[in-house]
Amino acid sequence: MTPRTLLPDLQAYADVKAHAASLKQASLERLFEEDNSRAERFTAEAAGLHFDYSKHLLTKHALASLLKLASQAGMPESIGDLFSGKSVNNTEDRPALHTLLRASSNEEHAEKFKHVIATRDRMQIIAQKLNRGEHTGYSGAVITDVVNIGIGGSDLGPRLVTSALKPFQGEVRCHYVANADPADLQNTLLHLNPASTLFIICSKSFRTEETLANSLEARAWMLTAGAKTEELEKHFLAITTNLQAAEDFGIPSGHCLPLWDWVGGRYSVWSAIGLSCAIALGWERFAELLAGAESMDQHFKTSAPSANMPLLMSLLELWYCNFLGAKNHVVLPYDHSLERLPNFLQQLTMESNGKRVSADGQPLDYTTGPVLWGSTGTLGQHSFHQLLHQGQLLCPVDFVLPLTTYTGMAQQHLNLVANCLAQSRTLMVGRSLQAAKDTLVQRGLDNKKAEELAPHLVMPGNRPSSVITMKSLNPTTLGALLALYEHRTFCSAQLWQINPFDQWGVELGKEISVGIAQKLQDADVTNTMDGATERLIQRWKNAQT
Amino acid sequence: MTPRTLLPDLQAYADVKAHAASLKQASLERLFEEDNSRAERFTAEAAGLHFDYSKHLLTKHALASLLKLASQAGMPESIGDLFSGKSVNNTEDRPALHTLLRASSNEEHAEKFKHVIATRDRMQIIAQKLNRGEHTGYSGAVITDVVNIGIGGSDLGPRLVTSALKPFQGEVRCHYVANADPADLQNTLLHLNPASTLFIICSKSFRTEETLANSLEARAWMLTAGAKTEELEKHFLAITTNLQAAEDFGIPSGHCLPLWDWVGGRYSVWSAIGLSCAIALGWERFAELLAGAESMDQHFKTSAPSANMPLLMSLLELWYCNFLGAKNHVVLPYDHSLERLPNFLQQLTMESNGKRVSADGQPLDYTTGPVLWGSTGTLGQHSFHQLLHQGQLLCPVDFVLPLTTYTGMAQQHLNLVANCLAQSRTLMVGRSLQAAKDTLVQRGLDNKKAEELAPHLVMPGNRPSSVITMKSLNPTTLGALLALYEHRTFCSAQLWQINPFDQWGVELGKEISVGIAQKLQDADVTNTMDGATERLIQRWKNAQT
Repeated sequence: MTPRTLLPDLQAYADVKAHAASLKQASLERLFEEDNSRAERFTAEAAGLHFDYSKHLLTKHALASLLKLASQAGMPESIGDLFSGKSVNNTEDRPALHTLLRASSNEEHAEKFKHVIATRDRMQIIAQKLNRGEHTGYSGAVITDVVNIGIGGSDLGPRLVTSALKPFQGEVRCHYVANADPADLQNTLLHLNPASTLFIICSKSFRTEETLANSLEARAWMLTAGAKTEELEKHFLAITTNLQAAEDFGIPSGHCLPLWDWVGGRYSVWSAIGLSCAIALGWERFAELLAGAESMDQHFKTSAPSANMPLLMSLLELWYCNFLGAKNHVVLPYDHSLERLPNFLQQLTMESNGKRVSADGQPLDYTTGPVLWGSTGTLGQHSFHQLLHQGQLLCPVDFVLPLTTYTGMAQQHLNLVANCLAQSRTLMVGRSLQAAKDTLVQRGLDNKKAEELAPHLVMPGNRPSSVITMKSLNPTTLGALLALYEHRTFCSAQLWQINPFDQWGVELGKEISVGIAQKLQDADVTNTMDGATERLIQRWKNAQT
Repeated sequence: MTPRTLLPDLQAYADVKAHAASLKQASLERLFEEDNSRAERFTAEAAGLHFDYSKHLLTKHALASLLKLASQAGMPESIGDLFSGKSVNNTEDRPALHTLLRASSNEEHAEKFKHVIATRDRMQIIAQKLNRGEHTGYSGAVITDVVNIGIGGSDLGPRLVTSALKPFQGEVRCHYVANADPADLQNTLLHLNPASTLFIICSKSFRTEETLANSLEARAWMLTAGAKTEELEKHFLAITTNLQAAEDFGIPSGHCLPLWDWVGGRYSVWSAIGLSCAIALGWERFAELLAGAESMDQHFKTSAPSANMPLLMSLLELWYCNFLGAKNHVVLPYDHSLERLPNFLQQLTMESNGKRVSADGQPLDYTTGPVLWGSTGTLGQHSFHQLLHQGQLLCPVDFVLPLTTYTGMAQQHLNLVANCLAQSRTLMVGRSLQAAKDTLVQRGLDNKKAEELAPHLVMPGNRPSSVITMKSLNPTTLGALLALYEHRTFCSAQLWQINPFDQWGVELGKEISVGIAQKLQDADVTNTMDGATERLIQRWKNAQT
């Protein structure tokens, strides 16, 4: 097999690099002045989302060269490969067919799709039974609270969807427990009644350390409350492929919903892993979430590269990361409900693309997987925005802005919108030394004082940001938004020639942890590991007395 | 005035640079092998915290050169200046005396300290009255819930302290509302009863946009519920210096607690801004928080540079940021209670040090203020740790680890500790190509397959991390921990020659926001701003119909 052609070896690479060099010092404001149609041209529309990328250090020629690069990296074909079920997860020899989970119909993967539909049907029945108050526990009490136990993809996706769609929530309350720290489960159970609580255990292998430990505690809590062993099944469901382990735990196979090896954890909220969301929101709303994602899938699959929203976002990521030196990317949703979006995207992007070798094992000498971080607006304005405006790191921003609110408080929401647009504009326009000085003189400072202080008020501006808007945040647009970032992550991986669907970097830590857990319980730990770890183990032992 | 000597012009700079160049490729494991005492030497102890920094690309000679650099940057003197009340916030011509807020005695600033003590006494009385159930509302009902309305420093600090010390909480529940998005307040009030709710409005100026908007809504909620205007004072306290504005709102001066211009927002949890914590935890616990911070202050003020924990942490920040190319810093508390620590630290570090000019206004050509991010362990292990282990960005990590748990669940906690130590060790040791291949062969892969897959399992290792441990997380150690990061931030600012106490970069966005809010309500917006903003304003208008 010929090795993959890496990014710098693509023909268009030099051209993109030349554009980057010339645009590095360009003025965004001047680009707007020079081209009136810019604000219109650099936008894309899909699945209820509008993507404005006009405030980027980009010209139509630079974009054309990026699109050429994408084409040389095999872009349209690899999108096809994703949907057609090729082994895009080559190191694990599997397809990545999360798009099938939200398809309304599919002929290409008839056998797999049959299982998807059958599982959806079972999810619907479970959700409806709970929402109608027909699921009862060991005492006959109606289940009112659901606790999802899972970690990583079995937690972040469902937790985000449930909290982002709070105004759509029904009667059953959903809670999420993930952490190995026992405080997480303990705090959650504190206010719950075992008789009316249902646990959903999400672990493909039924062996995830954190999830298994929390599940065993939950089981003990249920038994202590008076449930008999044979009644446990009324309080536990599992999303797993390890039916035997689930049965040993006390969950019969009839209470297990399947997962498939062609669905990665961080792409699994659309599968039975999303059951807690279907319960919290009701089945129709969950179906709308799937439909929103499917609508983005269709756009991604069929639209021309130059209008393809995930691809355009990915090209911007590449542009800043590999040509303009950015090492991070900021996501700022101006909607309190999207508080957990940055957390979710951290796993999606950094676990997918934080790699050091190409899909075929060549070490890379260019950066993949920038750090992603952020928080909801306007909170960040009173925190880290100082660095965005006056710090010295290039931090491209995605603003995410629903244009209406469910709260009925229109005037307050108008101010939120104004703040969002103002931050995006301020990053671009900045403030010159002269403007800073004038401002200070207007405030009553004498000339000398104003001159002295003015450098501190200077903002270089020219800092890039995108604005993603939608009429309202609802199941459909949320589904589209998450699928958008999924596909953006996939496109970037293709450009970087890496496999976004494996995560080999996480297993060694688990192995070493097992060894250290043993050492914490051994009498003597000297000369078995590095001196620092040994010393810390000893400190822990001393603290136990 | 002679301009400040900037970092690259310090005499020791070249020496530090040479050390960095030689250590860039050094092997951490080999450094341990070469020097048995390393694990012991590279530690520091203060105020109940233990700081292990032995897993850093550092030798004693490199550290000595960094300490020399600190000395040349005026380090011991500037620590003295901080405590003695010099105008370290030079652009606003103010001292930064947050250390005075937690002092148990002070003669140097007798007048200011008198006000501090008087305010503490009033806080204690308020907290005790609430904790004894003696504070009643308009209907005579006892206050059971407190809602803190504030943003930035008036929110992040109190919110962190209250949530981190949950096991110490008493009967009165404290809630936090910060966001301009009206959903934040609305969600919080949904489950509260006006008759038993008290609001604390935290805004130095009583003009902060978000806080004022939320406070007005809270006031309306209270009046709608049946409170008379003259009864509002039973339900509102304010932490402010603008007594007139508070009174116009309906809060008499007797219900206002003071702030001083020598306390910055992000350093204010120790002041009356911390009132909600004092209520949630009880006064004694809050006093312990102050004592823990004071203990760190004493350490910072009096210990030798080579043993000075905040200074050492700061030198590591400088080392990686300015000599080894790191643009970010990761904080991973292995304690579920510290979920909000990274958020708090984002404001502390990025708002303080995200600057582009020196304190005397010279533009800088070196990086200050790296991005700080993180989350609680073990959650990150199932998310972004992939990037920490196999990504291509240098991400120095602080692990924060309490050695015992309040939950009583010792075995589960042991596993949490093992995971933390394992992550730190794994970052250092990594996995070689040969080890990766051997692992795969042991798992049953044939030689060819193993060879193909092995590059994906390689982990370069040699990735630096610190481990901060404490016997338990309690008010005292939390106080010390927060003061530690405060002083680290201060030291870094001194090394970078910037002012960490101003935030001029945030005001322009507010001004532009006022203009855009107006435009959202105007009939015609064309030709007043950049085309992108105009177009987005039009999109918003269209969405309202």
